[in-house]
Amino acid sequence: MSDTPPNGPGDKAGRHGPTIRDVARLAGVSIGTASKALNANGRLRQETRDKVNEVALQIGYRPNDMAQSLHRTRSMTVGVLSTDSFGRFTLPIFQALEEQFADQGIAIFMCNATDDPARERQHLDQLLGKRIDGLVVTARRADKRAPVGPLPPGLPVIYVYSQADDGDALSLLSDEEDGARQAVNHLIEVGCTRIAYLTGPEHFEAVLQRKLGYHAALAEAGLPEHPGYYLSGKWSEAWGREAVAALFDGAGERPDGLFCGNDQIARGAVDALRERGIKVPEEVAIVGFDNWEVMTSAARPPLTSVDMNLSALGHEAGRLLIGMIGGERLRGIRRLPCTLVVRESTKR
Amino acid sequence: MSDTPPNGPGDKAGRHGPTIRDVARLAGVSIGTASKALNANGRLRQETRDKVNEVALQIGYRPNDMAQSLHRTRSMTVGVLSTDSFGRFTLPIFQALEEQFADQGIAIFMCNATDDPARERQHLDQLLGKRIDGLVVTARRADKRAPVGPLPPGLPVIYVYSQADDGDALSLLSDEEDGARQAVNHLIEVGCTRIAYLTGPEHFEAVLQRKLGYHAALAEAGLPEHPGYYLSGKWSEAWGREAVAALFDGAGERPDGLFCGNDQIARGAVDALRERGIKVPEEVAIVGFDNWEVMTSAARPPLTSVDMNLSALGHEAGRLLIGMIGGERLRGIRRLPCTLVVRESTKR
Repeated sequence: MSDTPPNGPGDKAGRHGPTIRDVARLAGVSIGTASKALNANGRLRQETRDKVNEVALQIGYRPNDMAQSLHRTRSMTVGVLSTDSFGRFTLPIFQALEEQFADQGIAIFMCNATDDPARERQHLDQLLGKRIDGLVVTARRADKRAPVGPLPPGLPVIYVYSQADDGDALSLLSDEEDGARQAVNHLIEVGCTRIAYLTGPEHFEAVLQRKLGYHAALAEAGLPEHPGYYLSGKWSEAWGREAVAALFDGAGERPDGLFCGNDQIARGAVDALRERGIKVPEEVAIVGFDNWEVMTSAARPPLTSVDMNLSALGHEAGRLLIGMIGGERLRGIRRLPCTLVVRESTKR
Repeated sequence: MSDTPPNGPGDKAGRHGPTIRDVARLAGVSIGTASKALNANGRLRQETRDKVNEVALQIGYRPNDMAQSLHRTRSMTVGVLSTDSFGRFTLPIFQALEEQFADQGIAIFMCNATDDPARERQHLDQLLGKRIDGLVVTARRADKRAPVGPLPPGLPVIYVYSQADDGDALSLLSDEEDGARQAVNHLIEVGCTRIAYLTGPEHFEAVLQRKLGYHAALAEAGLPEHPGYYLSGKWSEAWGREAVAALFDGAGERPDGLFCGNDQIARGAVDALRERGIKVPEEVAIVGFDNWEVMTSAARPPLTSVDMNLSALGHEAGRLLIGMIGGERLRGIRRLPCTLVVRESTKR
């Protein structure tokens, strides 16, 4: 960023600060292209669009032809509002946002509302009073929520690992259905044919999304569904142990693969199987979810798990918000891919 | 906070904003008392001091008789700089700070430098550019670090769960030595006489602080120290299992109590003992450290553990920083007490 913004010959008299001409020159594009990029219209490569918006942000270009920017000047701050207490899921997202914004010289206001609407309102008022350039809303679960607000028109907002019940909002989520599909496909590839899904409470969107992926993978492979193989309970190791007792101590046909809704359930399952003398992965292969190192590496054997790439989600959210601050208009739900991390619990 | 600051008859001509007279009136104290509280001198009850400083902060009182405030006006923002990546230990501290400051209408800038001095400098410059009223420096371990800076004279700074190698700084820590002493005293109370200490790597200040408490408790009880009973390794479950193998599979005299440097080591130990058919707590009682619910509640049996009360540490840091912004001058190292949380692993 420069203290003395370049002053091209095309500047209007009396106007200070960088112009679209400066943006175009520094981004190495024509004024027409810069205009398209800044107004988020026309056909452009995403790369070009990003480059122009980045330059605009860096030199502090303030467009005067976009309604949402008419009455605002950049404060070089954004707000991050967590609607649940900060935790394991919000941390990597926040860390990534912080890196992304710090690189642009943007400071972050952090607020936490812990499911308290009055507190949330208070935080929003405070953030708006600080004239933030944009807002990120995050949560510890990806369920739908009422949109935050009311907000001033044109304030860029992104929901991350959270989605607003509002078609005009932009929500960034992890593709948990596909993550589940990858997990179950992997179990099928290593030879499992009787695959159970042990998971958390059904009022979590995550449980249902992953169930869709579980069903889809079985259907694609032509494997029958066993009605007793879907067990919804808690997100705990104790539940993993209980579920194994239900599946393996009874008279029913035993599964040879377990897809677990999180790594704690998988850890409980692996312990319970070992204590029954059932070999993992030889007799039963197991996949967890979250790729939480504390659990995956301490389990015996270490757990194969689905990583939601929350850090990538945070980086992408930062990148998109910077584009929106530069004038891009984005909406809808975007889901980023999960990655399967293979360890001993499925290595046959 | 009021939009129209009260204007008492004692105002100097040409001076706008609240005066010390307003602070005194709203706090229900004399002007002399308000002055003592704001200047952090004289004898006053802590309650009175806090009340006066709170009122001063709330009405935006700007003392003109304190050097550090002469050239600053309040921005109603503070910076929180984490010098390590955010994690399990910084989270509860941050959450508490956030609550404390939000109640005062103060917004928090969050920055993360991850042991990168250049990044730290960049963040500090940014924070100072935003004219923060105060700074909290936190870390994921309580070891000494070089003071952040250079900072403008008079800017209130607190190190939390971190300490600066600077006699003029204020550092707030958990009393880990006493926490260890409580743990070992408890093992002695439930009848243990051969107590081992299984812990993490010695280059952690925490390992040494807790070792002091371990030694002190044994000495106070007149119990001999067994040279083989101090095992320093990693902060992991795997190390807990290894340490149990070393202590219980050899020819040496077996311990009847284990004090573990964290809950992961304790969890590993409890698993390893169960697999050897050694009963916890009947034959060996176990205490962990951190009171990390993920570990303490999943262990079989659930773990007694030392809680560092990081949330209380964060609240106290927020309270103290608010006082410092109001004019109090504090320095030195303060250690807040730990709490022992008793569960089945020591219930005999």
